[in-house]
Amino acid sequence: MRENVRIEKDFLGEKQIDKDAYYGIQTLRAKENFDITKTNLSLFPNFIKSLAKVKKACALTNYELGDLTDVQRDAIIQACNEIIDGKFHDQFIVDPIQGGAGTSTNMNANEVIANRALEILGKPRSSYDIIHPNNHINMSQSTNDVYPTAIKLTLHELIYKLKDSLRFLRDAFEAKSIEFKDVLKMGRTQLQDAVPMTLGQEFKTFAVMIDEDIYRLRDCQALLKEVNLGATAIGTGINTKPEYQRKVIKNLREVTGVDYVSAGDLIEATQDTGAFVHISGILKRVAIKISKICNDLRLLSSGPRAGLNEINLPKMQPGSSIMPGKVNPVIPEVVNQVAFDVIGADTSISIACESGQLQLNVFEPLVAYKLFTSINMMRRSFYTLADKCVKGITANEDICMEYILNSVTLVTCLNPILGYEKSSALAKEALATNRRVYDIILEQKLFTKEELDELLHPRNMVNNYDKDEN
Amino acid sequence: MRENVRIEKDFLGEKQIDKDAYYGIQTLRAKENFDITKTNLSLFPNFIKSLAKVKKACALTNYELGDLTDVQRDAIIQACNEIIDGKFHDQFIVDPIQGGAGTSTNMNANEVIANRALEILGKPRSSYDIIHPNNHINMSQSTNDVYPTAIKLTLHELIYKLKDSLRFLRDAFEAKSIEFKDVLKMGRTQLQDAVPMTLGQEFKTFAVMIDEDIYRLRDCQALLKEVNLGATAIGTGINTKPEYQRKVIKNLREVTGVDYVSAGDLIEATQDTGAFVHISGILKRVAIKISKICNDLRLLSSGPRAGLNEINLPKMQPGSSIMPGKVNPVIPEVVNQVAFDVIGADTSISIACESGQLQLNVFEPLVAYKLFTSINMMRRSFYTLADKCVKGITANEDICMEYILNSVTLVTCLNPILGYEKSSALAKEALATNRRVYDIILEQKLFTKEELDELLHPRNMVNNYDKDEN
Amino acid sequence: MRENVRIEKDFLGEKQIDKDAYYGIQTLRAKENFDITKTNLSLFPNFIKSLAKVKKACALTNYELGDLTDVQRDAIIQACNEIIDGKFHDQFIVDPIQGGAGTSTNMNANEVIANRALEILGKPRSSYDIIHPNNHINMSQSTNDVYPTAIKLTLHELIYKLKDSLRFLRDAFEAKSIEFKDVLKMGRTQLQDAVPMTLGQEFKTFAVMIDEDIYRLRDCQALLKEVNLGATAIGTGINTKPEYQRKVIKNLREVTGVDYVSAGDLIEATQDTGAFVHISGILKRVAIKISKICNDLRLLSSGPRAGLNEINLPKMQPGSSIMPGKVNPVIPEVVNQVAFDVIGADTSISIACESGQLQLNVFEPLVAYKLFTSINMMRRSFYTLADKCVKGITANEDICMEYILNSVTLVTCLNPILGYEKSSALAKEALATNRRVYDIILEQKLFTKEELDELLHPRNMVNNYDKDEN
Amino acid sequence: MRENVRIEKDFLGEKQIDKDAYYGIQTLRAKENFDITKTNLSLFPNFIKSLAKVKKACALTNYELGDLTDVQRDAIIQACNEIIDGKFHDQFIVDPIQGGAGTSTNMNANEVIANRALEILGKPRSSYDIIHPNNHINMSQSTNDVYPTAIKLTLHELIYKLKDSLRFLRDAFEAKSIEFKDVLKMGRTQLQDAVPMTLGQEFKTFAVMIDEDIYRLRDCQALLKEVNLGATAIGTGINTKPEYQRKVIKNLREVTGVDYVSAGDLIEATQDTGAFVHISGILKRVAIKISKICNDLRLLSSGPRAGLNEINLPKMQPGSSIMPGKVNPVIPEVVNQVAFDVIGADTSISIACESGQLQLNVFEPLVAYKLFTSINMMRRSFYTLADKCVKGITANEDICMEYILNSVTLVTCLNPILGYEKSSALAKEALATNRRVYDIILEQKLFTKEELDELLHPRNMVNNYDKDEN
Repeated sequence: MRENVRIEKDFLGEKQIDKDAYYGIQTLRAKENFDITKTNLSLFPNFIKSLAKVKKACALTNYELGDLTDVQRDAIIQACNEIIDGKFHDQFIVDPIQGGAGTSTNMNANEVIANRALEILGKPRSSYDIIHPNNHINMSQSTNDVYPTAIKLTLHELIYKLKDSLRFLRDAFEAKSIEFKDVLKMGRTQLQDAVPMTLGQEFKTFAVMIDEDIYRLRDCQALLKEVNLGATAIGTGINTKPEYQRKVIKNLREVTGVDYVSAGDLIEATQDTGAFVHISGILKRVAIKISKICNDLRLLSSGPRAGLNEINLPKMQPGSSIMPGKVNPVIPEVVNQVAFDVIGADTSISIACESGQLQLNVFEPLVAYKLFTSINMMRRSFYTLADKCVKGITANEDICMEYILNSVTLVTCLNPILGYEKSSALAKEALATNRRVYDIILEQKLFTKEELDELLHPRNMVNNYDKDEN
Repeated sequence: MRENVRIEKDFLGEKQIDKDAYYGIQTLRAKENFDITKTNLSLFPNFIKSLAKVKKACALTNYELGDLTDVQRDAIIQACNEIIDGKFHDQFIVDPIQGGAGTSTNMNANEVIANRALEILGKPRSSYDIIHPNNHINMSQSTNDVYPTAIKLTLHELIYKLKDSLRFLRDAFEAKSIEFKDVLKMGRTQLQDAVPMTLGQEFKTFAVMIDEDIYRLRDCQALLKEVNLGATAIGTGINTKPEYQRKVIKNLREVTGVDYVSAGDLIEATQDTGAFVHISGILKRVAIKISKICNDLRLLSSGPRAGLNEINLPKMQPGSSIMPGKVNPVIPEVVNQVAFDVIGADTSISIACESGQLQLNVFEPLVAYKLFTSINMMRRSFYTLADKCVKGITANEDICMEYILNSVTLVTCLNPILGYEKSSALAKEALATNRRVYDIILEQKLFTKEELDELLHPRNMVNNYDKDEN
Repeated sequence: MRENVRIEKDFLGEKQIDKDAYYGIQTLRAKENFDITKTNLSLFPNFIKSLAKVKKACALTNYELGDLTDVQRDAIIQACNEIIDGKFHDQFIVDPIQGGAGTSTNMNANEVIANRALEILGKPRSSYDIIHPNNHINMSQSTNDVYPTAIKLTLHELIYKLKDSLRFLRDAFEAKSIEFKDVLKMGRTQLQDAVPMTLGQEFKTFAVMIDEDIYRLRDCQALLKEVNLGATAIGTGINTKPEYQRKVIKNLREVTGVDYVSAGDLIEATQDTGAFVHISGILKRVAIKISKICNDLRLLSSGPRAGLNEINLPKMQPGSSIMPGKVNPVIPEVVNQVAFDVIGADTSISIACESGQLQLNVFEPLVAYKLFTSINMMRRSFYTLADKCVKGITANEDICMEYILNSVTLVTCLNPILGYEKSSALAKEALATNRRVYDIILEQKLFTKEELDELLHPRNMVNNYDKDEN
Repeated sequence: MRENVRIEKDFLGEKQIDKDAYYGIQTLRAKENFDITKTNLSLFPNFIKSLAKVKKACALTNYELGDLTDVQRDAIIQACNEIIDGKFHDQFIVDPIQGGAGTSTNMNANEVIANRALEILGKPRSSYDIIHPNNHINMSQSTNDVYPTAIKLTLHELIYKLKDSLRFLRDAFEAKSIEFKDVLKMGRTQLQDAVPMTLGQEFKTFAVMIDEDIYRLRDCQALLKEVNLGATAIGTGINTKPEYQRKVIKNLREVTGVDYVSAGDLIEATQDTGAFVHISGILKRVAIKISKICNDLRLLSSGPRAGLNEINLPKMQPGSSIMPGKVNPVIPEVVNQVAFDVIGADTSISIACESGQLQLNVFEPLVAYKLFTSINMMRRSFYTLADKCVKGITANEDICMEYILNSVTLVTCLNPILGYEKSSALAKEALATNRRVYDIILEQKLFTKEELDELLHPRNMVNNYDKDEN
C-alpha cells in the first residue's frame, strides 16, 4: 500500500483513498464510474453550499430529537458552515452528470462533512464509528429528499442572481429609451415599412419585455419553496421519527432565511419534477425574448452602407482580417447562442422529466446540470450584453429620419388631414417617380415646411391613444 | 362570366367569387395562396367566435365615437352575434397556417361580417359602399391587434375546457386512490425494490400531480387577460381616436364577460409573444406529467405473467391477431403519443416566437394553430384516459402483497425493531437461499404470524411522519 | 336492433355495425377508443394503398404456400387492387394517432379487404367463415411487421413526391440565378457589408442547397427499402412457414415494383425505429435550409424604402387595411412556418422513438402521422414557394449597384491595385465625409470612370479562383 | 506599465499582454468579450490541432505561390507542427462560445502561430513586421473558410473515435448474445407477454442496432470531406490568387492524409450548415437507440424481487444509505442522461443553423461546441457502458424460463400442433385457475414432459423462417 493513502470499505469491497482527502470510498467509486463531462461539482458552488445547508438543517433536527450528541452536532455544524463559507469545494469531485439519482453527490457531501467533522474533533479520517457519513450525516435522510431539496435551494438563489442580471440589462435599455425618445424612425412589420415610432419606444419595448420576465421568474421562485425534505426514500418518511419532518423544514427555514414549506404530498413531491419543467420553460421564455432582442439589434445596426444602419453598436473587436474596419455585432451574436443553448437544454430537461418512473425520477442530475448551466450562462451573457453592447449604442438620427421622409407610408399619417384620395395620389406619385413624399408635398405647397415638420414631430406621430386613461 | 358568381376588386385586380359566399376577394386570394394543411379555420370554432367578439367590441366602440351609424351598428352587431352563436363558420375558409401575420384570418372575418350585415340590411353582397370590410368592420383596427387579441380570448376559453378535462381525470385518480387505500405494495426507485407504500398512495400521487397543473393553468389564464386591442399597426394606435383604446377594452370586457385589461405598453404587447411561449411551456408541463403517469400505468399493468401485473387496465379492444386473449394498454399508449406531440409543438412554438422581428411576430398563425391543436388533443385524450382506462382499473392485491412478502427490503422496515445487524443477516439469507424474508422470520420465530402481519399493516408502513402537524 | 345494422362479435362482446360498412367490429372499437385528431386514415391515401400492397403480397404468398384457395386468393387480390386504385378509402375510419402500435389500422385494412372480398364473392358482410379478417387477410402476419412495412412503402413514395417538389423549387431558383447573373450586389456576413457578389450567385446558392438535400433524401430512400415483413409478432416469424418470409419479400417487390429487401435481423428490425429517426432528421435538414432561404428572401425584399429592397417578391395579396399599398412577403412567411412545424415534429418523433420498449415501439402511429404530415405540408409549400414567389421575383439592379458604389468595403477589391495604404486612406475619408468611395476615387483621378467601371464589373469581382480546375 | 507585459495595438486601441503569452491583442479582446462558459478552446484538443493543420496547408500554399519566404514558411510550419503535436494548447484561451462567427478562434490560432514562429526565429513576441498574424498566418484566408474547415476536420476525426467506442460497445453486446444464446425468455410487445425468444437474440438486437449506426456515421464522414477552404470571406475567393484554392485543397489532403475535396459551390458552402445539421441528426439517432437499449437494460434488471429480474447488471456502487444491499443501474442511468443531452443539443444546433443569414452562419461556434461536446460525452459513456455494465451482465436463466412456462401465450406456440380450439381452452383454464399452462398440459397428458421440453427448446421456438435463404 502506498504511504499517502488510507483504506475504506463498503459491501462491494475496499479502496485506497488519498490520505488527506475528505471524501471517502463512495465518492471515489462514483468518480471512477462517471467520467462523462470532465468537470465536477465544484463547477456549481451554490449547489455545494445548498447541500451543506440541507445537511445542517438535518443535523440540527437530529440533535433536537436526541439522535446526535452535542459533540457530534457541533462538529457537523461547523463543517457545514465551513462549506457554506466556500471551503472544501475542491473535495466535491464527482461528475455532476451521474447515475443513481444523485446518490453520489449526496454521499460526496456526507463523506466530506463526516471527515471534516472528524478532523475538527481531532480524529483521523475514516473514523466513522465516531461520525459516520451514512449513520450520522445522512441520518433521517435519503438522497431522494436531500438531493432535490438542495437543487431547489440552489435554483432559488440562482434565480435571484439571474433577476439581478436582467434588471441590469433592463436598466440599460431603459436608459437608452430615454436617450432616444426624440429619434423618430420607421416602424416595421413583416420587415416592410409600416408607420412611424421613436427609437426610444423601440428600446423601451426591450425594457418592458425583460421586466415581465423578471415577474415570471419571481413566480417560479415561489414554486421552488415547496420541498420534500423529510420524505426519505419514496415519500413515506421511512426511517424518520414522526416529528422529524416538521422540525427539519423549520430548521431549513432558519438555516437559509427563506420560507421553505413542506410539499403537501411527499410521495408526489419525491417523484414529481413539475417545478423543474416549469422553470426550464420560463428560462426558455427569457432566452427567446433576449434572442429576439439581439436579432433586432443586429438588424438595426446592419450596414453600415448596405444595411439599415439606424444604430451603432460599440466596437468590441476587429471583425475581419480581410476587410479593414469591418466590425461585427459580436456581443448580440454570442447572446443569441446562449439563448439557443438554453432552448435546447429545455428539450433535454423535458425528456429527462418525462422519463421518470414510478416513485422517483432518476434523471434529476442532468436536469440540475442543465438548469444550473443555463442560468449561469444567461446571467453572464446578460451582463455582457448590457455592459459591452447596450450601454454604448448610439443612434444615427439622420438616417432614421431619412427613412421616414423617404417612405411612402408617411401618407398614412397625413390621411386624417389630406383625405384618403389626396394621400393615395401622393403615394402613387412617390412610387412612380421614386421620390420622397416629403419633397412632393412641399413642391405642391400642401403645407409649409414648418407645418409639415410640426406634423411629423414625434409627439404627433407615435402615441395616438389617450394614455393617461389606461 | 359564370352566372353564379360576383366580382370583387382590390388593388391587385379582380376576382370572381361564388355569388352566395359571405367571404370576399381577400379571403379568396388567401385561400389560393395558402394550401398547406388542407384544413381551414372552421377547425377552431372557438377562435371564430373570439374574432366575432373582438369585432363586436370594436363596432360598439366605433359607434360610441360616432363613426358608425345606428343602422350600420345594428347590422354588424347582429352579424357578429350570429357568428358567436355558431353560424356561418363554414365561411371561414382560409388555412389556419398562413403568411401575413393573420391578415387573411382577419379579412375573412371582416368580409363575412360585412356581407352578412349587408344581407341583414337587405343589400346585395359586396355593396361595400354601405358596409365595407375594411372601412367599417375593421375600423380603428389592424390585424396586429385584432388577431393576437382573438387568440388570447380563444386560449382563455380553451384553458377552461382543458382544466375541466384535467379535473375529470384527477377525480378518476382520486376515486381510485380511495379504492386502493389498503392495497400494500412495493414502492420502487430506479426500478429497484425500495420500501412499501399503498397503491392508493400511488394513485393519489397522480391526482395531486394533476391538481398542481390545474393551478398553473389558472395562472396562465391571468397572463392571457392582457390584450393589445387598440394598438393597431405597431402599438402606437395610429388611425384611432384618442378615447378609442380605453373604450374598446371596456367593450371587450362587456362582450366577453371576462375582465380583460390593456397591456401596459402597447408597442411591446404587439410584438411580444411571451404569453404564448409561457402557455406552451405549461402545456408541455402537463403533457410531461400525464405521459409519466401513462408510462407508470403501462408498467404496473405489464404482464400478465411476465410483467409486474399489479393492476389491470380495462380491456378496450383485442390486442393481437396471433396471440389469443392478448390485450394491450392502448389508452395510455395513445395518450403518451398526444403528449409527445405537445412536446414537439412546444419546440415549433419556441422557434416561431424567437423568430419575430422588430415590431411584429409574423408567425403567430402557426403559434395559434399549434396551441389550439395541442389543447384540443390533450382535452380529448384526458377524457378518454379517465373514462376508458382509469375508471376501470382494478388491483391485483395478492400480487402486490406477494412482492412485499417476497422482498428483501422488507428488512428495512424491521430495522428499528430487529436492529441493523439482525436485519442484514436476514437479508443475506434471503438472497442466498432465494427465499422470502417473511418465511425466514416466521421460521426463526422472531415474531408470531400475527405480530408480523400487524407490523406489515399499511398503517405501520407507509406514513412515518406526523402528517397533521404539517 | 336497428334495421340497417349487422352484428359482429369478438372476445370482448358484440357490436352493431352499419350494414353497408366494409369495416368490422375491431375498426369500430378503435374508432370509439381513439378520438384524438378528429381526422382519419383517409387523410393519407398513399398509406392506405401501401397497406393494400402489403396485404396483396401476403395473400399471394399464402396462396403459393397452399394456405388460401384460388377463390379466396382472387377475391382478396381484387379487393386489394381496388384499394390500390383509390377505392373504399372512406372505409378507413380509425384515427391515425392510436394506441396498440397500429393494430387498429391493420385490422381496419383486414376488415375492409375481407368484406369487400366477400362482396366480390357475392357473400354477405361478416361471413368470416369464408374469408376472415384475421385468419385469411392477416394470415402469417402481425401488425408488428405489416404496419412498419406499410409505413416504409408510404415514405418511400412520399419522398419521391417531395423530391419532385424540391426539384421544381430548385429549378425556379436556378432560372433566377441565370436571370440575375449580371446583377452586382453587396455580399453580407453577420449582416455587415462584406464584399461584392452577384444576385445570380446568391440565387444559385439556394439552388445548390436544395440540390444537396435531394441527394440526401435519395440516400434515405435506400434505408427505407429494408423491411421486416415476415417477422410477425417480435421478429421470430412465429406462426409462419419457413419459406414464407423469403417469398413474401419477393412478392412485395413484384407488387410494388421497388426492390425491397429483408432486414438482416428481423427481431432488431421489428423494434428499431432508426430509419424513421433518420428520415425525420433529413426532413428537418430540408426544413432548416428552406427556412433560411425564406428568411433571406424576406430580408432582401425588405422595405421598400426603409429596408434592403434589393429584390421584389410578387404581390400576392393586400398586406394591410391601414397602410395603402403595403404588400407583405406572405409566401416565404408561410413556408417558414411549415419549416418550424417540421422541426417540432422531429422532436416528437425523437421522443416517440426513444420511448420504445423491448421488442416493439408502440408509438409508431405518431411517428408515421408526423412524418406523413411533415412531408405533405413541405411538398405543398415548396410548390407554393416556387410558383407564387420565386418565379415572380425581380431585381432592383440600381439599388444593388448603389450599395456597392456607396460601400466602404469597395476598397477591399482595389487593395491589390492601389495598395493597402492608399485603400485605407480612401476608406477613412469615405467614412469621415459620409461619401461614396466611388466618387472619391474619380475625384482624386485615381482611375478614369471607364477604368473604374471595368474594375467593378462582376467578372472581376466575384469569382477569384480558378474554377475550371476544381 | 507592468514589467511582465508587452503592448499590442489594433484599430480600436492598444492592450497590455502577458510578456510570455503567445497569443496577442485580438485573443485578449475576445477573452474579455466572451466570458460565457468559463471554459476555453483547450477543451477540444482535436479542434486546435485541426486549426493548425489548416494553417499549415495554407502556409504551404502561400509559399508555393511565392507569397512567403523560405524562412517564414519554415518557422510557420514548425509552429503548426508543434501545435499538432499537442504543444501550446494552453495558449488557446478564448471561450468556444463566441460572437464573430469564429473570428476569435481563428485569430487566437493566427497569433499563437505567429508568435511561436517568431520565437523559433529568435525574434521577440509581437514582431509582426516579420511574421504577422493576419498578413502571413491568415494570408489568403478568412475565418469564414478556415473555421468551418477546421470544424469539419475535427468532426471527421472525432467520428472515427466515436465509431471505435460504438464498435467496442457492439462487441460487448455481441459477446453477450453468444453467451445467452440458449436462454429462452418471454418476448414482450407493449410490455405485455408476447412470444418466446432467447436472451441471446435480445442482446444480438442491441449489437445489430449499433452496427447500423456505425454505417450511418461512416456516411456522415463522407459529407464532412467537402470543405470550403479557399472561399475566403463569402465564397468568391476574394484576396486569393486564382491557383490558390485548388492548391490549398491538395495541401490539406497531404497535411491530413484524408481525401478532402473542394465543395462544388463555394458561396453555398460558406453559408450552408447542412452537414452539421445532418451529423447532429445522426448523433441524435445514435443517442436515441442507445437510450432505448439502456431503458431495456434497466427494465430487464428491475427487481430483484418486485421486478422482471431477468438479468443482473454488475454492482458498481452502493445504491442506498437506507436500504442495505440495494444496488441501482447507475451506468445505464448515466448513459440515458448523455443521450437526453445529445437530443437537446440537436435542438440547439437546429435553431442555430436555421438562424444563419445571407452569406454566413454566424452561429457556427455554438454548433461546433455542441457537436464536439456531444461526441465526447457519447464516446466516454459508451466505453463506460461496455466496460462497467454490459461485460458484467449475467442472466437469471431460471427466472427467464419460469416466465415462459408460466405464460399463457405459450399456447400460441402449440397452436400448430394442438389446434386453435384446444389451445384456447388451455389458455382459458390457465387464466381462470391462475396456473401454469405447462403444468396443465402435463396433467392432461397432452405431451410427455420430454416431448413438451423438446417443443419448448429454443431451436423450435425462436426462429421460424428459413434464415439461410435471406
